[in-house]
Amino acid sequence: MCEANVYIDRNGQEKLFMEQANIIIFHKDGTLFIENIFGERKTIAARVKEMKLVEHKIILEESW
Amino acid sequence: MCEANVYIDRNGQEKLFMEQANIIIFHKDGTLFIENIFGERKTIAARVKEMKLVEHKIILEESW
Repeated sequence: MCEANVYIDRNGQEKLFMEQANIIIFHKDGTLFIENIFGERKTIAARVKEMKLVEHKIILEESW
Repeated sequence: MCEANVYIDRNGQEKLFMEQANIIIFHKDGTLFIENIFGERKTIAARVKEMKLVEHKIILEESW
């Protein structure tokens, strides 16, 4: 399947935030709604830095 | 493979922008750098609205 793991980049350290994310909705208020294939849902105030889909990897940077 | 097709949403009409995108870099100036598995590269002033990875779909909205 083609979902991706979502990581948060904190000072160069990538911490896993959600596994196997499928849906990401980018709200105009700067928050991201993320849902994975197991139905887990999270919202986070962060921006996407980079996506490497073939590597199943999405890297976020938190916004304060 | 797990790349995704990138579409631009223009008034509810989704127009294909790039097939089989693999890497997307989100620049702080609001532009997106997109590269697909064939090495095609494009930069666009747009924001991501939504991603449905299992459907291999990324929807952009152009910023003026």
